[in-house]
Amino acid sequence: MGELSLIEKIRGLLGPPGAGIIIGPGDDAAVLEPPAGLTVVTCDAFVEDVHFRKGYASLSDIGWKCMVANLSDIAAMGGFPAHAVVSVCVDPGSTEDDVLGLYRGLLGAARSYGTEVVGGDVVSSTTGLVVSIALLGVVDPERIVTRRGAVPGDALVVTGELGGSDVGLMALRDGEGAVEDLAAAVDRHLRPKPRIAEAQALIDVATPHAMIDLSDGLTTDALHLAEESCVGIVVREETIPIAGCAATAADRFGVSPAELALASGEEFELLVALPASEVDRSVEHVEAVTGTRLTRIGEIVESERGHILIGKDGTEDALRRTGYEHALGRER
Amino acid sequence: MGELSLIEKIRGLLGPPGAGIIIGPGDDAAVLEPPAGLTVVTCDAFVEDVHFRKGYASLSDIGWKCMVANLSDIAAMGGFPAHAVVSVCVDPGSTEDDVLGLYRGLLGAARSYGTEVVGGDVVSSTTGLVVSIALLGVVDPERIVTRRGAVPGDALVVTGELGGSDVGLMALRDGEGAVEDLAAAVDRHLRPKPRIAEAQALIDVATPHAMIDLSDGLTTDALHLAEESCVGIVVREETIPIAGCAATAADRFGVSPAELALASGEEFELLVALPASEVDRSVEHVEAVTGTRLTRIGEIVESERGHILIGKDGTEDALRRTGYEHALGRER
Repeated sequence: MGELSLIEKIRGLLGPPGAGIIIGPGDDAAVLEPPAGLTVVTCDAFVEDVHFRKGYASLSDIGWKCMVANLSDIAAMGGFPAHAVVSVCVDPGSTEDDVLGLYRGLLGAARSYGTEVVGGDVVSSTTGLVVSIALLGVVDPERIVTRRGAVPGDALVVTGELGGSDVGLMALRDGEGAVEDLAAAVDRHLRPKPRIAEAQALIDVATPHAMIDLSDGLTTDALHLAEESCVGIVVREETIPIAGCAATAADRFGVSPAELALASGEEFELLVALPASEVDRSVEHVEAVTGTRLTRIGEIVESERGHILIGKDGTEDALRRTGYEHALGRER
Repeated sequence: MGELSLIEKIRGLLGPPGAGIIIGPGDDAAVLEPPAGLTVVTCDAFVEDVHFRKGYASLSDIGWKCMVANLSDIAAMGGFPAHAVVSVCVDPGSTEDDVLGLYRGLLGAARSYGTEVVGGDVVSSTTGLVVSIALLGVVDPERIVTRRGAVPGDALVVTGELGGSDVGLMALRDGEGAVEDLAAAVDRHLRPKPRIAEAQALIDVATPHAMIDLSDGLTTDALHLAEESCVGIVVREETIPIAGCAATAADRFGVSPAELALASGEEFELLVALPASEVDRSVEHVEAVTGTRLTRIGEIVESERGHILIGKDGTEDALRRTGYEHALGRER
């Protein structure tokens, strides 16, 4: 694989720099007009056989999801993504077409959500493929939502439906990705969507106190939000919106739909704490503007009450980390 | 290694966020005040056994150099670095202390040059350690220098002295890092310095047309500059400033000092094309302000003349890529 040839081809995929990009890819650094607001920046790395397996996903799928994971982080701050820089460590088994496929996927996700790739780095990896993306965006100072502002009395709401990503992964693992009623779950797993518009619609009509995207799974990320806000949290299992495919998966893979919804990682839905009085109008407005459900699944309580999961039978249990622990975590 | 324990300890190393950081590490994304100028952004990934070997460098050294490579890219655009986000893919052989050592090194470099780490990601690697850094900075729109503006008639100048980094690497490989007259070369290899102040001093008194940092080696990066500017280039071997240790290395390792200076990678000096009339005052001012030599080593010529290396005996040869080709390149 020739370095210059590959870099030329990647530049071809990127196309000419858009508005606000003073210097685009190909120099020591990119130069951008600063945003009309605050700069928001995040980064995430994705490692072969930890975050993805080439056996389950095309290179384009892998690129798409790596970009979405970053887009989702910007969404969860109340921001809009704008510019990305991408480092790809190419494993010896990858061809030039593989790298271009990866770029097509990540550019597809970026462009779908108003983001341009303005620079990057392509280096050798001695073993697996590693994709590292840093994403810059803009956030209105009045609309920043952190993980830290939840207060007792807040309602806890979640966008969309949960469980589909893990069902999709199970279907891929078991070679049942082509089974008709699992195709939507596979698509959900391979081509997730960041909830940028949903976050903005919510902030338009409500004053969310804390927000986090569900990358590690509902229970794990609910604990992150509660711990960062120094509050207790109650999640009511019977109210959790479960993806339709989870029922199918329950039969096929012998798992509980509710457990799937609690543990499924890489859902990229938003979990939000907001004043209880704002829930009704938020549900109505977010669905009207984006078509996405918003569902109340619990509340924020005093820290002394701890982190609680109320089962369908009304029993209380401790909310425990059950989702993916990507960071230094278990292999997928 | 516990994820939360490690992340807590990394946050402890980072300390409280400084001025201009609205939201620091620990949330979905960091939020920053936009710079009073344009935003400059770069990223680089560093892979174990491609860009570094643990046998030659401490984790702290590795962290330092990864950060410097990014700082150097910002310097070469005429910018000032300000904020970094860091992804670390931790290999199974690394301990918590190793990761903290890596952070100490990269924070040491960052803080030495006015940069704060505002976010990051720590994930598992199935094999080697991978460090990926994205660096944001600020550049005055009137002071941007790209790789693309060199014109025939420009002089070609370089900061500092060349060859030391490769000599240091050879000394480490051969277990002679402790040899007294090679210690400076080892330090140069493990703890390079970005030429931020040198770039600024140069821009204060001159109008550089094109600038690049020497990460791949003099000949390779000179070709990058010439190709991006669509010009020819002449480098005069006898004028190249060679590090003192290269003479020592010539005896010890059987290599030519001049070849070392042409090929040595990761020197992080700046190669600059500027009007010939501005060379004298640039040399004087850069050395007065920073203590760093600036040496004229050639000139920009019409593209038809090609890329030429004039040897000490006056013979002309084609300038060929001889340095490190990090991108998809040879293993170190």
